[in-house]
Amino acid sequence: MKLATFEVDTPVGPVERIGAVAEASDTDSHGAGEATLVDLTAAYSAALESEGEPAPADLAHAHIPPEMIAFLERGERAIADAREALEYAAETSAERGPAGAKIEYEPGEYDLLAPLPRPNSLRDFMAIEEHVENSMDGDIADVWYELPVYYKGNPDSVVRPGETIQWPEYSRIMDYELEIAAVIGTRGRDIPAEKAEEYIAGYTVFNDFSARDTQGEEMEARLGPAKGKDFANGLGPYLVPAGDIDVLEAPMTARVNGEVWSEGTVDEMYHSFADIIEHVSQSETLHPGDVIGSGTVGEGCGLELRQWLEDGDTVALEIEGIGVLEHTVVE
Amino acid sequence: MKLATFEVDTPVGPVERIGAVAEASDTDSHGAGEATLVDLTAAYSAALESEGEPAPADLAHAHIPPEMIAFLERGERAIADAREALEYAAETSAERGPAGAKIEYEPGEYDLLAPLPRPNSLRDFMAIEEHVENSMDGDIADVWYELPVYYKGNPDSVVRPGETIQWPEYSRIMDYELEIAAVIGTRGRDIPAEKAEEYIAGYTVFNDFSARDTQGEEMEARLGPAKGKDFANGLGPYLVPAGDIDVLEAPMTARVNGEVWSEGTVDEMYHSFADIIEHVSQSETLHPGDVIGSGTVGEGCGLELRQWLEDGDTVALEIEGIGVLEHTVVE
Repeated sequence: MKLATFEVDTPVGPVERIGAVAEASDTDSHGAGEATLVDLTAAYSAALESEGEPAPADLAHAHIPPEMIAFLERGERAIADAREALEYAAETSAERGPAGAKIEYEPGEYDLLAPLPRPNSLRDFMAIEEHVENSMDGDIADVWYELPVYYKGNPDSVVRPGETIQWPEYSRIMDYELEIAAVIGTRGRDIPAEKAEEYIAGYTVFNDFSARDTQGEEMEARLGPAKGKDFANGLGPYLVPAGDIDVLEAPMTARVNGEVWSEGTVDEMYHSFADIIEHVSQSETLHPGDVIGSGTVGEGCGLELRQWLEDGDTVALEIEGIGVLEHTVVE
Repeated sequence: MKLATFEVDTPVGPVERIGAVAEASDTDSHGAGEATLVDLTAAYSAALESEGEPAPADLAHAHIPPEMIAFLERGERAIADAREALEYAAETSAERGPAGAKIEYEPGEYDLLAPLPRPNSLRDFMAIEEHVENSMDGDIADVWYELPVYYKGNPDSVVRPGETIQWPEYSRIMDYELEIAAVIGTRGRDIPAEKAEEYIAGYTVFNDFSARDTQGEEMEARLGPAKGKDFANGLGPYLVPAGDIDVLEAPMTARVNGEVWSEGTVDEMYHSFADIIEHVSQSETLHPGDVIGSGTVGEGCGLELRQWLEDGDTVALEIEGIGVLEHTVVE
């Protein structure tokens, strides 16, 4: 199942909904906005009505609220409800559910948003040795082997899949980073590594856009990256439930204007997502909607390849089983 | 005016409200929870009713919503409404407003929360040269003079004024940092320094608790502080509107178990709040409820004084015109 957040134009202004890629259109070949989406709340509501439930829309709203973080907070039960809604949509011939809510949206009838348009938080790790070695000219701090180190990104700077990114005026060096992000679904604190996977709702593609000149300059002051990272975070196009993807094996590819620049998997993570969750949750509460970036795969950015994005380039990050996350950068 | 967020116990569970310190009890001498608070929404509602408004509670809720970020979003007009509500409370003999809402709360009738229990974001700068020099053993990076550098803190780790802080098990070195925080009230992007002050709603005291051993260790990896800072952020006790305080001149003091450890002002900021806002808002949108820490005043933490907090110590940070923010740390 591929979960999405999307926006629908209505006479009273745009309305945000959550959906899933319709079974019939679920292939890896399409980019953002090219799939048929099932409105999960509407489909669940229709399914309830067909079973004779007297208040289907209200009940569906409580089971599958049309906002991703509220949905994730409901845990495994909500994922199961979503699967049921998706199946019902595939079987029914009805176009609309109770109160006239449309069940399916074709390409062009919706705008795809990031699955989490505004994550609760964004922590990005640096868990893959090859990337660190390539980025730091071989000079890896000892602490890197001891702890999963990270910086905190700006959750207010998430861009839509397909959105054109206006590069900041203060930077000349445009780079992408090929990452996978785990999304927390369950609140927790002091979580042991062996239980950590229960806290992950699912995974999505993460492009940690990086203004390399700015980042290098500001990091000299030892407080980590800020302006070098915080102007744009690509997340999407879909959020895939943890049970539906073998995250360590999923092939990851970055293409620039169609040409393969990076390939890899996160199988090589030195610190696993489970270790990361154990580390971060010490004396700190994790919340639904917290996003945890894996860090860049080896040779997964221009910095390692010594080549940069140019004005008008389109970067497409693909993770098999999730989809293609595409953005064009302009100066 | 001193704005507060507080919680009231009710038969249907705790309810969050916003208030201001009652005029009669507004002195600098009291700590958190020792003042009489006016419930601003209730008082404004009562004032409207006295003027013959037919729907006073609804209108008051729209003017002064009982949640600080929603209140700040309403800008200057909401601050003026709050002043009006506070004056009405001082003049009226009524104890309750429309729909029976209580207008004033005495100490013991409420729990004080941080003015922003969950800020939209938390950026902490390092704008005072003496602190940087003392902390870095005199080795200040050149970039520090060129840019206001900062790290992003964890807005989910804000503690209540007066709350006892359980120090993380992974750390042995307990420290405080004496800072003042500006709170953004108006959404903005690419804000020029000369207009920046219009975006600041007010100021509060900020204690950036720091696990110095952990911080030092993780910063070797160059991604900035994380576990060394993210377990506790003290904010409060009150939020003072920008027009009500001369922030550069306000005396700041840190006392540990009553003994003065630090004294200073932020007059010595090398990068002003205006410069900081110009810098951060480049290609990045600032939102109401974003918190901007000044950085520690010179000799404003134990690291500079080469002395640490001990198990059971009480740290009280005072800024004249705002109040005393007190916490006890335990191992």
